[in-house]
Amino acid sequence: MNKEKKIYVVGIGPGSYEGMTGAAVAALEKSDVIVGYTVYIDLVKDHFAGKSFLTTPMRKEVDRCVMAFDEAMNGQTVSMICSGDAGVYGMAGLMYEVGANYPDVDIEVVAGVTAATGGAAVLGAPLIHDFCLISLSDLLTPWEKIEKRLLLASEADFVICLYNPSSHKRHDYLKKACELMLQHKSPDTVCGIVKNIGREGESSQIMTLDELKDTQVDMFTTVFIGNSQTRNIKGKMVTPRGYRDV
Amino acid sequence: MNKEKKIYVVGIGPGSYEGMTGAAVAALEKSDVIVGYTVYIDLVKDHFAGKSFLTTPMRKEVDRCVMAFDEAMNGQTVSMICSGDAGVYGMAGLMYEVGANYPDVDIEVVAGVTAATGGAAVLGAPLIHDFCLISLSDLLTPWEKIEKRLLLASEADFVICLYNPSSHKRHDYLKKACELMLQHKSPDTVCGIVKNIGREGESSQIMTLDELKDTQVDMFTTVFIGNSQTRNIKGKMVTPRGYRDV
Repeated sequence: MNKEKKIYVVGIGPGSYEGMTGAAVAALEKSDVIVGYTVYIDLVKDHFAGKSFLTTPMRKEVDRCVMAFDEAMNGQTVSMICSGDAGVYGMAGLMYEVGANYPDVDIEVVAGVTAATGGAAVLGAPLIHDFCLISLSDLLTPWEKIEKRLLLASEADFVICLYNPSSHKRHDYLKKACELMLQHKSPDTVCGIVKNIGREGESSQIMTLDELKDTQVDMFTTVFIGNSQTRNIKGKMVTPRGYRDV
Repeated sequence: MNKEKKIYVVGIGPGSYEGMTGAAVAALEKSDVIVGYTVYIDLVKDHFAGKSFLTTPMRKEVDRCVMAFDEAMNGQTVSMICSGDAGVYGMAGLMYEVGANYPDVDIEVVAGVTAATGGAAVLGAPLIHDFCLISLSDLLTPWEKIEKRLLLASEADFVICLYNPSSHKRHDYLKKACELMLQHKSPDTVCGIVKNIGREGESSQIMTLDELKDTQVDMFTTVFIGNSQTRNIKGKMVTPRGYRDV
């Protein structure tokens, strides 16, 4: 009987070892080879001695997938790791797309804590009610589509969590996004930002949407914009469960 | 020096012990008392022998919070547990609201894997791009608000994940929701449902939005509606990372 060819696509959570699920730890322990972007490999390396680690730089995602499948085809059990959850702006989708060329390899996604819920825990409880995630990166998505989502999500009074709010080339995108959201949300809307969730240098701040508009954030920051009910309770960002009294 | 009065609000993930993060396990191990809804206590009980377990029935959420704070005020270290993530339709918000009356008690939220990302891992990779979570429960939210969100989220071409898609009293809500989404989404939109995520009897199914409209689901099911790019790749529900070729 042939050994099953297997790749785990593993979300390692926001960054600390403690943030990984038991299932994620087990997948890495069962693996011969761990593949990932350099920064994520560095986060887990010390906890999984004796494994082979393979890295590729950012933006070489397809190469990274092919590398993982090649190892699996050679009989290695492989984990492809992502920060947060592999299924939220992560590698799980591309692994299934590339995996169509490797029908003998079984793919198993192992869920992790994504930055939205990890960051929410730092801020308090901003995501208690309906919310949406929007990435401000226009690398693979036309800006007009992002703009439309920001406007409609604001009109629908969702709590909004922004991923990739900034980069060197896109330093004014958060400001542009805030201006769009201000068409439907009050300038007093309670907002929060969290930097380096679950990693060294974790920090957070609560502010109004009007203040957020003029705040510079970096690419390691996750941004939260409340709904019309979100409140600042003693420095914590809290969205109530509903619109009726409990 | 007084002992710090401490409550952890802990997301235990979809259900299995393996789905808990290391930080969640550590919080429960540090606790004297574990408080939760009966079903969740039963999920963790065997792994945390020697702890005191306190339960309240569903819908007694405020009582459950007060119970937790009373234990903390008596010097006990307490964990309040929720399934999934405590910050997503969970108890974290109410704990901060009730906690305003207990200024001496420190609240720490420990993030977990919510049904959206846990279920996504079962279906493939449906949440790779912008998505939103909408609860169909109108217990605390007027149906008109839910309806507006379904329409605007569909118009924005979000992937949509539905929590609480059904109950005894609301057996036709998923059908109503599908009819609204069909105003902006194609009947061929790839959808998926996952039942009992991470628990005994886990099962999943992929179908079109048109088929979903006439599907009966129960309250232990999480429902996923793709965006216009979501595809069925060999039985897996996969949303591409963007709108341009990679």
